Amino acid sequence: MLAIENLQLNTQGKLRHFLSIEGLNKDLLTEILDTAESFAGASEQSIKKFPLLRGKTIVNLFFENSTRTRATFELAATRLSADILSMNIATSATSKGESLLDTIRNMEAMQVDMFVVRHSLSGAAHFIAQHTAPHINVINAGDGQHEHPTQAMLDMFTIRRVKKQFAGLRVAIVGDILHSRVARSQILALNMLGVEEVRVIAPKTLLPAQVEELGVSVYYDMHVGLKNVDVIIMLRLQKERMNSTFLPSENEYFKCFGLTDEKLKIANRDAVVMHPGPINRGVEIASSVADGPQSVILQQVSNGIAVRMAVLSMTMNGNRGAE
Amino acid sequence: MLAIENLQLNTQGKLRHFLSIEGLNKDLLTEILDTAESFAGASEQSIKKFPLLRGKTIVNLFFENSTRTRATFELAATRLSADILSMNIATSATSKGESLLDTIRNMEAMQVDMFVVRHSLSGAAHFIAQHTAPHINVINAGDGQHEHPTQAMLDMFTIRRVKKQFAGLRVAIVGDILHSRVARSQILALNMLGVEEVRVIAPKTLLPAQVEELGVSVYYDMHVGLKNVDVIIMLRLQKERMNSTFLPSENEYFKCFGLTDEKLKIANRDAVVMHPGPINRGVEIASSVADGPQSVILQQVSNGIAVRMAVLSMTMNGNRGAE
Amino acid sequence: MLAIENLQLNTQGKLRHFLSIEGLNKDLLTEILDTAESFAGASEQSIKKFPLLRGKTIVNLFFENSTRTRATFELAATRLSADILSMNIATSATSKGESLLDTIRNMEAMQVDMFVVRHSLSGAAHFIAQHTAPHINVINAGDGQHEHPTQAMLDMFTIRRVKKQFAGLRVAIVGDILHSRVARSQILALNMLGVEEVRVIAPKTLLPAQVEELGVSVYYDMHVGLKNVDVIIMLRLQKERMNSTFLPSENEYFKCFGLTDEKLKIANRDAVVMHPGPINRGVEIASSVADGPQSVILQQVSNGIAVRMAVLSMTMNGNRGAE
Repeated sequence: MLAIENLQLNTQGKLRHFLSIEGLNKDLLTEILDTAESFAGASEQSIKKFPLLRGKTIVNLFFENSTRTRATFELAATRLSADILSMNIATSATSKGESLLDTIRNMEAMQVDMFVVRHSLSGAAHFIAQHTAPHINVINAGDGQHEHPTQAMLDMFTIRRVKKQFAGLRVAIVGDILHSRVARSQILALNMLGVEEVRVIAPKTLLPAQVEELGVSVYYDMHVGLKNVDVIIMLRLQKERMNSTFLPSENEYFKCFGLTDEKLKIANRDAVVMHPGPINRGVEIASSVADGPQSVILQQVSNGIAVRMAVLSMTMNGNRGAE
Repeated sequence: MLAIENLQLNTQGKLRHFLSIEGLNKDLLTEILDTAESFAGASEQSIKKFPLLRGKTIVNLFFENSTRTRATFELAATRLSADILSMNIATSATSKGESLLDTIRNMEAMQVDMFVVRHSLSGAAHFIAQHTAPHINVINAGDGQHEHPTQAMLDMFTIRRVKKQFAGLRVAIVGDILHSRVARSQILALNMLGVEEVRVIAPKTLLPAQVEELGVSVYYDMHVGLKNVDVIIMLRLQKERMNSTFLPSENEYFKCFGLTDEKLKIANRDAVVMHPGPINRGVEIASSVADGPQSVILQQVSNGIAVRMAVLSMTMNGNRGAE
Repeated sequence: MLAIENLQLNTQGKLRHFLSIEGLNKDLLTEILDTAESFAGASEQSIKKFPLLRGKTIVNLFFENSTRTRATFELAATRLSADILSMNIATSATSKGESLLDTIRNMEAMQVDMFVVRHSLSGAAHFIAQHTAPHINVINAGDGQHEHPTQAMLDMFTIRRVKKQFAGLRVAIVGDILHSRVARSQILALNMLGVEEVRVIAPKTLLPAQVEELGVSVYYDMHVGLKNVDVIIMLRLQKERMNSTFLPSENEYFKCFGLTDEKLKIANRDAVVMHPGPINRGVEIASSVADGPQSVILQQVSNGIAVRMAVLSMTMNGNRGAE
């Protein structure tokens, strides 16, 4: 744990890599949210460009495909005036049998400044941060079933914009907690920012062992778990879990764990509904809820750009501070 | 029809989406051609950049592959100083089962300014324009067998540059009219701009029913149809129509409907030859004609950039006017 | 030969295409190295952008996949402020059956300024340079088994940075000389720049017939061939040569022609080890050597950007001079 903490922070305690919520603290998360707020305000104006990263080269190292995350990182980098090199590694160098480390060594020799890494293996971004040159920043854009910290921070940003503060909030995360790097990062961030309670609601087969140790209350029934909650975060159900030992059927899942208007009424009247997307309509969420007045799902997408701009510029600064 | 017209124009009658030639009028088409003319002149100089769309984000939403059209839109956007996000949707989000509408909603939440849409379904660009946020412009880069209006306008631009005016011109479109969105847009534009006559020359199996209602004269024989024409537009023959019920063989097709030097002599002496590309040499056109002195095929490609710059900048302006 | 020479140079003898080392001369190669040196120095500073190619459009025409080469050309172009259009031709227009010449004609009609070409056919870049419009520069990024001149020049740059001068140097190139465009360009450049001796070390099955005519001494045994050498260039072994008539097995190859610490000791004490990458650890080179103190493999990658910046800016200038 300590190693990870040190890896993410420079000697003045500033962010220089952004790898996981684990190892950070409330002050740093708040600084990210405040920085994102300044970008979000500005991007509502007509010209959305900042010269902060002019002349810097950011490499998108996507070992796993992701339209949305790649697009928002690319837009965030563009709006900070950085140059972007997008590498779809699944279809390139490593197919010539090159190791991850050799790929990294070669990219860093090209005098780039930052890696945004998405990889199907847990720990890939940490591994890269441990082994890359000291002047390079690493951002985790999702690693295996470990963490997806920029997604968690855009969720925190969305919650803070709507609810103003974290103190006193009850947040329920519903769905496949077991396989979700998003849920893991969210639980860590929510607890760090001091919400009243984090609940997970899921069938037993989709919960990790000893899940309570993450700092959550466990519910198996939405009719109970949604009572008094202020924020409901629905997780995407990976279709490949279906017809497996994990789940009986889509219909059955929707009946028990899908969010409908009727179940939404169990929560507090002003509860908001979130989802990291892309949504499966009629599987984990009813269309009427996804498109309804309590949904902030599309605001999450918008907020993703401001939060990623914050993380890109803060780590680049943190790196300067450390040199 | 009225709905489409309103959709493309703002309350002052200015272009805000560019979805189809249908619904526009002679004045607007002429404004596009005049605007393109100003860009075409400037791009013959050394530095080809205009700051008109600085800070704007244009998303290429290509649900169907197209090297040439994507490249010219990308170059047009770059020369207007816009930022471009290229989404090859065939291989991305929708493969996770997301609907077209959810894809659009998510992209617009990323605070982008314009969608350039290519889709295999007729009406896709209209559908998107109907459902997207009011500040976003939509450009149709080809939808199914419906329209390909920027291709038609670059063809009009090419004709006007060579022939100076539309009045009095006889234009023949030769080939697979039935499946061609290009031909549909061309026929509409030529009639709107007031040419003397639009002819279609094709085998019966490649003509739509009631084709005369589009405002064309119908010919089944090039030796008759090419008499007195000033402009010959050859259409690409999709190889997949071959060995089908539509056509006997490539050789047979070339013999009847391929443009050779001999058949070209039937037309007016100063007739020009056009083709939207990519050409099938020896299928719909002889190499000697494609590369000959009457061919303006490569000028069409050059003109495509100026015309797309015109459409991008006019719709962006039209949007401002409407707000 | 004369035709090729003329093709690469303008009437004042300046570079306007960069197609092959063959046809150039010592002065031109030295000018490339000096120009690269000025960029390399500058890129060690914080902001790495030069406005030299602002408003110019460079098209990456990659008919063959290459992560590394494409990335370094893209970075070099970006750092010169050019606009880049990346065409992965393998998956695009030519799949519609368009000929290479038609693809080129169409791209040049888009008013672009430069083609960076990679193609599996020897002579493809020459062919394009012969047929393209006079204002367009062509850079060979590797053509079949013919030449890879920017790779050779980054290798020369790396050697000069470490060894200060070429006179007196003994250079050994080890591996699959027969199929290597890299080796061919290196041999030509090393001889042009006046090294003392170029050696090739390989099994007979991986040497071209009459290889001595290229100006090399031939060795079949590393224990003999590495004696007194100052620079060792290891070539990548294409795995597809294995289990063929060319080679017995990877293990056998490594035993005979792989560079180990033990064999490295045969060379001069201050010999440097080079490799064009990506490396096959344990096939042509031991990890301890690739990562060891005598390896300059990653410096080669860094130098590739400065050298490509030099070639891009010199050809663009040479073109201006010729007009």
